[in-house]
Amino acid sequence: MAALPRRVVVREVGLRDGLQSVATIVPTAAKIEWIRDAYAAGQREIEVGSFVPPRLLPQLADTADVLAFAQTLPGLRATVLVPNLKGAQRALEANAEMMLLPLSASHAHSLANLRKAPDDVLAEIANIRAERDASGRRTQIEVGISTAFGCTIQGEVKPEEVVRLVQAALDAGVDAVSLADTVGYADPAMVSRLFERVLKVAGDRLVCGHFHDTRGLGLANVYAALQLGISRFDACTAGIGGCPHAPGASGNVATEDLTYMLHSMGIETGLDFDRLLALRAKVAHWLQGEATHGTIWKTGLPRTMKKEVAHA
Amino acid sequence: MAALPRRVVVREVGLRDGLQSVATIVPTAAKIEWIRDAYAAGQREIEVGSFVPPRLLPQLADTADVLAFAQTLPGLRATVLVPNLKGAQRALEANAEMMLLPLSASHAHSLANLRKAPDDVLAEIANIRAERDASGRRTQIEVGISTAFGCTIQGEVKPEEVVRLVQAALDAGVDAVSLADTVGYADPAMVSRLFERVLKVAGDRLVCGHFHDTRGLGLANVYAALQLGISRFDACTAGIGGCPHAPGASGNVATEDLTYMLHSMGIETGLDFDRLLALRAKVAHWLQGEATHGTIWKTGLPRTMKKEVAHA
Repeated sequence: MAALPRRVVVREVGLRDGLQSVATIVPTAAKIEWIRDAYAAGQREIEVGSFVPPRLLPQLADTADVLAFAQTLPGLRATVLVPNLKGAQRALEANAEMMLLPLSASHAHSLANLRKAPDDVLAEIANIRAERDASGRRTQIEVGISTAFGCTIQGEVKPEEVVRLVQAALDAGVDAVSLADTVGYADPAMVSRLFERVLKVAGDRLVCGHFHDTRGLGLANVYAALQLGISRFDACTAGIGGCPHAPGASGNVATEDLTYMLHSMGIETGLDFDRLLALRAKVAHWLQGEATHGTIWKTGLPRTMKKEVAHA
Repeated sequence: MAALPRRVVVREVGLRDGLQSVATIVPTAAKIEWIRDAYAAGQREIEVGSFVPPRLLPQLADTADVLAFAQTLPGLRATVLVPNLKGAQRALEANAEMMLLPLSASHAHSLANLRKAPDDVLAEIANIRAERDASGRRTQIEVGISTAFGCTIQGEVKPEEVVRLVQAALDAGVDAVSLADTVGYADPAMVSRLFERVLKVAGDRLVCGHFHDTRGLGLANVYAALQLGISRFDACTAGIGGCPHAPGASGNVATEDLTYMLHSMGIETGLDFDRLLALRAKVAHWLQGEATHGTIWKTGLPRTMKKEVAHA
């Protein structure tokens, strides 16, 4: 059990994990406004979209344009999701700072999501690493182990398989790995056990936790990971999020709820809470008719939280 | 940091904390059905009402009748809230197994809720202890430290004051104490710190954690207390709950969400999850038009949770 981190990065994934799971197509101009406002609120890591075929996810068809805008903001680490070598080539062409490669620990989810078994995805990851090296780009490669705590299609996912895939991904030369509870099956005890095991293999290359709040345990799970020293978490403004190929997966941890918890605990995020709430209102407006989530926007901060803390 | 408890008691407080905070008056027959169903689901500790003047809380005016029914169920520990000596006399007359005495750590909340400063409440608690001894009853006395993590009226509540009040209550001869986040201001780090301090004073007489989910941290807070070995938590079916004299206080941790988290973590509760969900539906029906809360009733259990676990 490590001391809690003094500082945590809240990585905004609403523009990717969030928007891929709603029918509404948010116009490019609104996405740019979203990124501008998130940046003004202090966010410095934003997943801006996916390089997937537009016919599969028309909501993210403008990813290249959105990424190009994000790259104009100094100090912003814009990341893109990349499902295969072709997507990676586009990310390298665009000189993305980071590409996130999903690797399902569930065989069934891997087939549904990428039409490849996990070991075939690993082979593709090795190709992507080679392509990156050949390109001369500095684009970082992070592998996100999805369905790491179970799968709505397959059911159980063995921790041994997660550890094996993490080791294999690191052997294939990726820069970082993260663990994702894609479908909201994790509880804090599971998080403690699995992160502890993966830390033994990956050390500080385990860089992020990705939790869905589908069953109300998202922030409890974050707290369990924080206790192991994990200091980066994915979150979606307004708690949107899901996976088109994981039925019943919905609702990432809300950016504003996560930020509230961290600030209340005295953990720095560099984020301006009021600006996050204002952005949440905009996003909810753009997504009128879609389900949004989260709690703190309804109740507001405790009066015991001083402005300095709220804006830490 | 203790090992997580193997078994936890989920104490149902919906009939008191829940119903006192809604305008709807639930008929006595429905309350009896609630208790019968909760008992059939495995609940063995239920707070059935308050001995307060009916003009203040007409929703709980039938507490004596509800308690009398609860006392017919073998092995059920029925508790009542008691705000003063007069209420305690009624609880003793009724031979309640346990009476819960609220003691606000916030001076301002204490005045608003009981029209007495905390030290005057302590004097009353000593009188209640004397009355109990004189009565020859075995009625246990638990003091619930309310607003232990802050107050919507007063703002900050100092941990030193909580520790002082716990010590004073124990000195006054109460059998047990519990800590309550009446207004949903706690975060897991605060819970760890305050429970740790109070455990040093109270040891195993610190018997329960009472968390509101007003800002989405209820279950994270439970997890923090579990890590210190706390093995009893208050919860309300359908996540109802609040305090008439604590503006903005709403939503206890939902019984069914808490039970899901505990079962998922392999912690026994003796509760039948499906029966809890069926009861939740009934309660929501009785409270039509009132706000209800909770998550797991919307999404259902993960398919990885086997029936044996769900019904552990």
